[in-house]
Amino acid sequence: MIKITLPDGTVKEYKKGITPIDVAKSISEGLARNVISAKFNDTVVETVSSLNEDGKLVLYTWSNTEGKKAFWHSSSHIIAQALEELYPGIKLTIGPAIENGFYYDVDFGEHAISEKDFPAIEKKALEIARGKHNFKMRSVSKKDALKFYKEQHNEYKVELIENLDDGTITFCDHDTFTDLCRGGHIPNTGIVKAIKIMNVAGAYWRGDENKTQLTRVYGISFPKQKELTEYLELLEEARKRDHRKLGKELELFTFSQKVGQGLPLWLPKGAALRERLENFLKNAQKKAGYEMVITPHIGQKELYVTSGHYDKYGEDSFQPIHTPKEDEEFLLKPMNCPHHCEIFNSRPLSYRELPKRFAEFGTVYRYEQSGELHGLTRVRGFTQDDAHIFCTPDQLHQEFINVIDLSLYVLGSLGFENFVAQVSLRDPEKPEKYIGSIENWEKAEKAILNAAEERNLNFVVEKGEAAFYGPKLDFMVKDALGRNWQLGTIQVDYNLPERFDLTYKGSDNEEHRPVMIHRAPFGSMERFVALLLEHTGGNFPLWLTPDQAILLPVSEKHEKYAEKVLNSLENHEIRALVDVRNETVGKKIREAEMNKIPFMLIVGENEEAQNTISVRKHGGEDLGTLSVKEFANLVEKEISSTLKSF
Amino acid sequence: MIKITLPDGTVKEYKKGITPIDVAKSISEGLARNVISAKFNDTVVETVSSLNEDGKLVLYTWSNTEGKKAFWHSSSHIIAQALEELYPGIKLTIGPAIENGFYYDVDFGEHAISEKDFPAIEKKALEIARGKHNFKMRSVSKKDALKFYKEQHNEYKVELIENLDDGTITFCDHDTFTDLCRGGHIPNTGIVKAIKIMNVAGAYWRGDENKTQLTRVYGISFPKQKELTEYLELLEEARKRDHRKLGKELELFTFSQKVGQGLPLWLPKGAALRERLENFLKNAQKKAGYEMVITPHIGQKELYVTSGHYDKYGEDSFQPIHTPKEDEEFLLKPMNCPHHCEIFNSRPLSYRELPKRFAEFGTVYRYEQSGELHGLTRVRGFTQDDAHIFCTPDQLHQEFINVIDLSLYVLGSLGFENFVAQVSLRDPEKPEKYIGSIENWEKAEKAILNAAEERNLNFVVEKGEAAFYGPKLDFMVKDALGRNWQLGTIQVDYNLPERFDLTYKGSDNEEHRPVMIHRAPFGSMERFVALLLEHTGGNFPLWLTPDQAILLPVSEKHEKYAEKVLNSLENHEIRALVDVRNETVGKKIREAEMNKIPFMLIVGENEEAQNTISVRKHGGEDLGTLSVKEFANLVEKEISSTLKSF
Repeated sequence: MIKITLPDGTVKEYKKGITPIDVAKSISEGLARNVISAKFNDTVVETVSSLNEDGKLVLYTWSNTEGKKAFWHSSSHIIAQALEELYPGIKLTIGPAIENGFYYDVDFGEHAISEKDFPAIEKKALEIARGKHNFKMRSVSKKDALKFYKEQHNEYKVELIENLDDGTITFCDHDTFTDLCRGGHIPNTGIVKAIKIMNVAGAYWRGDENKTQLTRVYGISFPKQKELTEYLELLEEARKRDHRKLGKELELFTFSQKVGQGLPLWLPKGAALRERLENFLKNAQKKAGYEMVITPHIGQKELYVTSGHYDKYGEDSFQPIHTPKEDEEFLLKPMNCPHHCEIFNSRPLSYRELPKRFAEFGTVYRYEQSGELHGLTRVRGFTQDDAHIFCTPDQLHQEFINVIDLSLYVLGSLGFENFVAQVSLRDPEKPEKYIGSIENWEKAEKAILNAAEERNLNFVVEKGEAAFYGPKLDFMVKDALGRNWQLGTIQVDYNLPERFDLTYKGSDNEEHRPVMIHRAPFGSMERFVALLLEHTGGNFPLWLTPDQAILLPVSEKHEKYAEKVLNSLENHEIRALVDVRNETVGKKIREAEMNKIPFMLIVGENEEAQNTISVRKHGGEDLGTLSVKEFANLVEKEISSTLKSF
Repeated sequence: MIKITLPDGTVKEYKKGITPIDVAKSISEGLARNVISAKFNDTVVETVSSLNEDGKLVLYTWSNTEGKKAFWHSSSHIIAQALEELYPGIKLTIGPAIENGFYYDVDFGEHAISEKDFPAIEKKALEIARGKHNFKMRSVSKKDALKFYKEQHNEYKVELIENLDDGTITFCDHDTFTDLCRGGHIPNTGIVKAIKIMNVAGAYWRGDENKTQLTRVYGISFPKQKELTEYLELLEEARKRDHRKLGKELELFTFSQKVGQGLPLWLPKGAALRERLENFLKNAQKKAGYEMVITPHIGQKELYVTSGHYDKYGEDSFQPIHTPKEDEEFLLKPMNCPHHCEIFNSRPLSYRELPKRFAEFGTVYRYEQSGELHGLTRVRGFTQDDAHIFCTPDQLHQEFINVIDLSLYVLGSLGFENFVAQVSLRDPEKPEKYIGSIENWEKAEKAILNAAEERNLNFVVEKGEAAFYGPKLDFMVKDALGRNWQLGTIQVDYNLPERFDLTYKGSDNEEHRPVMIHRAPFGSMERFVALLLEHTGGNFPLWLTPDQAILLPVSEKHEKYAEKVLNSLENHEIRALVDVRNETVGKKIREAEMNKIPFMLIVGENEEAQNTISVRKHGGEDLGTLSVKEFANLVEKEISSTLKSF
């Protein structure tokens, strides 16, 4: 008998040689039907592997990342078999699971495949899958393994095997197909109900551009056809909502090769939108007692030596800026906190003046590899909606409550309803990892947890995830496509007050160390606008969107009236424009739809005679004929329903 | 007979050997009384020098810079004589005129002088002056000159003479005093009616810190006592208004040694004031058809190679920022124009879309020697209220009119009424110095001159002062102390459109080159705020000032009422605060005066009973007891009287 420990801590006894799938069966038939992968003592095993010693067993289903990994890796075997059958003589190399699906790198020899070939490959793969062939692992001697692939003239697998130790080599068989493989498969091919080739791309053998170029076949597979359909729809939707595509179409931002990669240039509509976002937050912050400051985008070496950032400035960073003065060195500012500490330090402060809340839309610069840059989400220069709160330890709880309220207000006003707060605390078993007294840490952690509870946040606690300088709370937001984004961090810091020797005079007339909170509800303006674009598909909330309405004169005759209405809309602070092109109203409407303009205002004979506008909502709803005043009321009502005051 | 040509072109004949002062007499007795210095054929001469050949003669009075120079240089002789008489054995070195007054560097030996000695020196100097001693130049042989100073054991003068050629050496005598001197004196000491030692400082002989440290005696002198008094008052006023002093007292900005010299940190009150200024200009710019953009604070080398700035990046600049990628180089942005050109270039444009007016409060960085840094007026990082207008050549005239209107609006709203526009045109004799076609230059110059005339500007034309890339117009503003500041430049540019290959599609369907205008009504936010501080002495216009009113409760009892009033003021959008300190109202008033708060609102028994406030204006005027509503109306009225809408 062996002892098997399950993840919930239960220990069960089984006969030696029992398989994971049998363990699942012993728990429930339902579980056994869904188990597709397993780990035993932290090593991936087959669901049909014999377990011969005591150990910890984890069973995985499709809903686990590990389960998907086994599923997709197994699917790559099926695709490989299909390719071999359709294109005899090709040479297989490696075929791992990836984040979404899998790939197989193949030397197609004289063959070449393209999109038109995908359906036939998918059809063949699905036929194989339907055969419900078991995946069976077996050990092979190095000699036999080499012989097997040498007979196939597959120099790639031969090279792989030559680098393996005899005794560690395994093959996996299913149906008529055999592959060199370390294991980690689903029980049988029949579980794969849907399989799709996504695309093909060139890939060098072993990633070395001096070696043969292979064809990388990307695929994905699912246990239900419906899931594949949904996945493809999501992909299509994500493609449509790609902020890089929308940002260009809506003329929000651009990049210039000359200015440099990862350095966005905000075009007029984007800059105005960003300013509205900033003003929205500024207004709320003003009510919440923040004070705006402005600091430079560079700082002297000494500043970063004090803050501790200088040591972390490696070869992968923007390098220091030298000056004519020897030994003088400036750095592009990678964060605003050191500058704000110096502002705190600019004159003596009394406890009566705390908390001090310094806010700045501070643009910072951090070097990213060019391959990692991505639209506005991964850039080299970005503007944080940064603020630093300096308070007494006793004020921490109230300040946390205040910042949570502000963050909830921001998320709510921008249509993010689906989020979780993640509270990161210290590992109480490793006090040496953290700066600051245990007493202060306890106070801070309690303050955060109480604040999260008082505000009824949906939150999870992660022990040991705190930074060395303090505990924190992050908002994890789900966008309209179900993807997670980290937004709105609130972070306690015991480190910088120490390093900058920040003090205030307490009621006891002694000098005390303030606590510092870093917070940024948006995170960065660039990333937040990207997220908003993808979340809304470019259909921004009415208060935020670039053009709120477009006037569409039916013919040239009505342009003058349209200009008059435009003027009157501007007096109502409605952002509008006139489409004066000599095009049909139908075409103008289609383009206004594409440009995501919320209201199309059609003006012709009747409207001009009655001094009205015919209002059509984005998406098609007809709101009838209204006076400008009525329309302005409608806009104001819609705005005030989303944009509450703080 | 010799021919003397005067500055107005008249040529007169005189006997050989005539002196400048006699020429003056021949013109008018009044002129002769005022002439204190002269230049003959571009060389400084004494007013009593003999003129022995044909030539150009310029006569100077106290109102000319050259006249002042002679006046102050002569005064340094008088001070030197006074010092020698009071401190026998001291060694004189050199004593030139400077921008304001003069100095004399003296080796005082065992003597030491300080402020308490100044009155005695001034008294002695004035006694000498009253003697009306003529300044008389005479040639001395090198041998005699050396002998003269060797006898005095003055190694400094000996060193100076040793470096001179025999035959070029002159001495100047007056009264009992003789000095080595190249000349350039007023006729006699009696013209100096007021003389003052300003301060003393250490100065190394020949500016070399390895040589003897001398005492530099700074002085100033005037032809009337009243002028000295006024000068000292102006100095005192300038000292009080020094923006560095006021900026600290009013908590507008600070500097940090760690962040770096010349990099201002805007404190909350300063940042808010700057934001009000920016919003003021933004609103006007919006009405004038500008669009805001946002660009990064760095740019790739390639950007500046294209713009031509890279070549000018010398050793005296911030050095390039390197990255992990070899050959990749970024520069801190020294100006915003290259970035705006890239925005213009981001998509094809038609003539129908012009003018494009891209505006940005763009922070730029330029390295200045630390010795040249001065508060907010000379910094290493500053924010330009920048905009670039891209238009067709035919639109230039209207755009210039528009920019002049905007500049006049800005100057008017901020209380600058005293200014001259300086129009800088090309040198028509040197066409090779300029880029762009002659036709375009003519068009542009005509556009500027016509615009200046149409707007009735008080302007002067400077031929040959244009930059190589285009003509310009600068506003030269006189501040409350009569000092000149250059503000609000408007500059045509034919160069960058060429270098960035900017084009638009004309009505002829061909590609055309747009003209570019650079303009910045404030210049930079830093310099403008400094100027405003010195111009207003910290008493900003009401719409701009940090705190518009302060509530002064007569005693603790009335604090609650004060808070209520504060709330109500905030609802009227009046920026106010409450002085809750346990101090007398008298002291609170004095401090509010110092803090330049325009309105002091006193609340006590009566005010609380009647729901009113007693209003005292900054400076002392009592406005009586008002309701909050009445006070709010008063504030609104004062604001709307200075801040017109554009």
